[in-house]
Amino acid sequence: MADAPLNRQILLVSRPEGEASVSNFKLVETPLAPLAEGQVRVRNHYLSLDPYMRGRMDDAKSYAPPQPLNEVMIGGTVGVVSESRNPKFAVGDSVVGMLGWQEYGTSDGTMLNQVDASRVPLSAYLGALGMPGVTAWYGLNGIIKPKTGETVVVSAASGAVGSVVGQLAKAAGCRAVGIAGGAEKCRYVVETLGFDACVDYKAGNLRADLKAAVPDGIDGYFENVGGEILNAVLARMNAFGRVAVCGMISGYDGKPLPLDAPRLILTQRLLLQGFIVYEHLDIWPQALKDLGERVATKKLLFRESIAEGLDKAPEALLGMLRGKNFGKQLVKLV
Amino acid sequence: MADAPLNRQILLVSRPEGEASVSNFKLVETPLAPLAEGQVRVRNHYLSLDPYMRGRMDDAKSYAPPQPLNEVMIGGTVGVVSESRNPKFAVGDSVVGMLGWQEYGTSDGTMLNQVDASRVPLSAYLGALGMPGVTAWYGLNGIIKPKTGETVVVSAASGAVGSVVGQLAKAAGCRAVGIAGGAEKCRYVVETLGFDACVDYKAGNLRADLKAAVPDGIDGYFENVGGEILNAVLARMNAFGRVAVCGMISGYDGKPLPLDAPRLILTQRLLLQGFIVYEHLDIWPQALKDLGERVATKKLLFRESIAEGLDKAPEALLGMLRGKNFGKQLVKLV
Repeated sequence: MADAPLNRQILLVSRPEGEASVSNFKLVETPLAPLAEGQVRVRNHYLSLDPYMRGRMDDAKSYAPPQPLNEVMIGGTVGVVSESRNPKFAVGDSVVGMLGWQEYGTSDGTMLNQVDASRVPLSAYLGALGMPGVTAWYGLNGIIKPKTGETVVVSAASGAVGSVVGQLAKAAGCRAVGIAGGAEKCRYVVETLGFDACVDYKAGNLRADLKAAVPDGIDGYFENVGGEILNAVLARMNAFGRVAVCGMISGYDGKPLPLDAPRLILTQRLLLQGFIVYEHLDIWPQALKDLGERVATKKLLFRESIAEGLDKAPEALLGMLRGKNFGKQLVKLV
Repeated sequence: MADAPLNRQILLVSRPEGEASVSNFKLVETPLAPLAEGQVRVRNHYLSLDPYMRGRMDDAKSYAPPQPLNEVMIGGTVGVVSESRNPKFAVGDSVVGMLGWQEYGTSDGTMLNQVDASRVPLSAYLGALGMPGVTAWYGLNGIIKPKTGETVVVSAASGAVGSVVGQLAKAAGCRAVGIAGGAEKCRYVVETLGFDACVDYKAGNLRADLKAAVPDGIDGYFENVGGEILNAVLARMNAFGRVAVCGMISGYDGKPLPLDAPRLILTQRLLLQGFIVYEHLDIWPQALKDLGERVATKKLLFRESIAEGLDKAPEALLGMLRGKNFGKQLVKLV
């Protein structure tokens, strides 16, 4: 009798104290159990790395329970079915799911969806045509509700979510302004993605540069980062401005930064709304249809940062939390 | 020819540096000019003192232009028409308006409305049946939208706005919890107004006392004060909680206090919305009808703090900003 095939997995083995570190993770090899009736096995091709993961590493009150210690790290995945005892899935099917940081995922089919990898690359289902794209779509259309001629600002503008927000805002007739870290990302945001302006927060003149980029103030803000950027943007919000709070990445790692001037919420009659895209499943079909058409017709562009190999996932996650990625951060396994 | 009659007025003569002081105001006597065609003169009976006035004293970006220096201090008033060259108003009419801190106001009739002082005292039109009452009604019904069984918290709970918020929340089937300064105010809020609980923020255990008062967390918060109270409440908000931001009184006077943990907006998917009741004029008739019925049938109770004499207005305003009032703060002129 042959040995059971081995699966390589990355576990979360400790919680960060302040900044997360690679030592919070551990790579293990585990035998793959035979499939039970109804189960399906997927060879993961790409892991999705996303800012929310930092929050799950803490044992803190949040919208989702913390990632349990000594279990496979959570995360979105795309891959191909390698074995199936579930009539809904056939070997060779391309599927998107939440199978976590491992080479092979085993599922009863829940939260596993077939996707068409013939027209767009499989990895797009973790970005513009996946959770990040729908997040952008919902925050913009469901909360900011941009009107022609308004100014919409988005932080982490070259990222998986931010890049979609700005392109959709531009398509809606708005002035689209990005905030990103570094001249190269800002050039990409303006020259390739077509934003009207981009502020490089690393250049050291955040408030002045932002002011110059939004001559008519800010009507909508899609928040991916928090901290000083949030404070700078709030100070320039117009009356009746809307803030879709999607991420507070600067609060994920280490000490959370306060919001300096909450009184602006009153004086400018602002709306701030936090949201989690998985709680708005009703809009996913509409959002994915719209995004799919834009991607297929090249009206919606995206970019990926790809780390090679499962063992690179922790380092790639930490890098993304520091803004080292450029576009959607993925880990390529196959 | 007799001397022109004199009007006593209080002007704002300087802007506060940090805390406001009585020296920012000056009492003057000014001759009353004869009425022009279309004008109406009102003997003010009561001045309304409201937290928003502190904001107007600063020369800062806000929803309204600052109070100009060396002009009569802004403010809501009720009084009786003493002279009229406007066909819409007759001598003896009771009217509510924005005639400011003076014994006699002169108006072209804009923003001046007749009220019925036969069933309720004139002063109620500055409180439960005026701007504060409608503010409470809109923030609760338009933003918090309470559902039966939810917990609604309101700060400045014994005040003109807060007392109405809690009573309406209770009537909507919610657990109504107030926050007020001092044991006497808290007793009033619970024993007279019928709130389920009240936290005395001056007792020194704000966070622990609040936790005990909201065993099921907080679903709706009506914010009148800001600062540490806002931070304490946000920390106990349930998922999908709504915060109606009506006042940031602790930020009006002196240095604004930051919001400690903006990440809660995301993790609890909160909605925070600032509002100004004058921007929602469409709901005033419905709100006033509802409030009027409740006041007339004694289902909605209110309380007033009355300072006697125009010259007491500055001191009474500063006292109110420090929470010295107990109920709606008025200045009685007649």
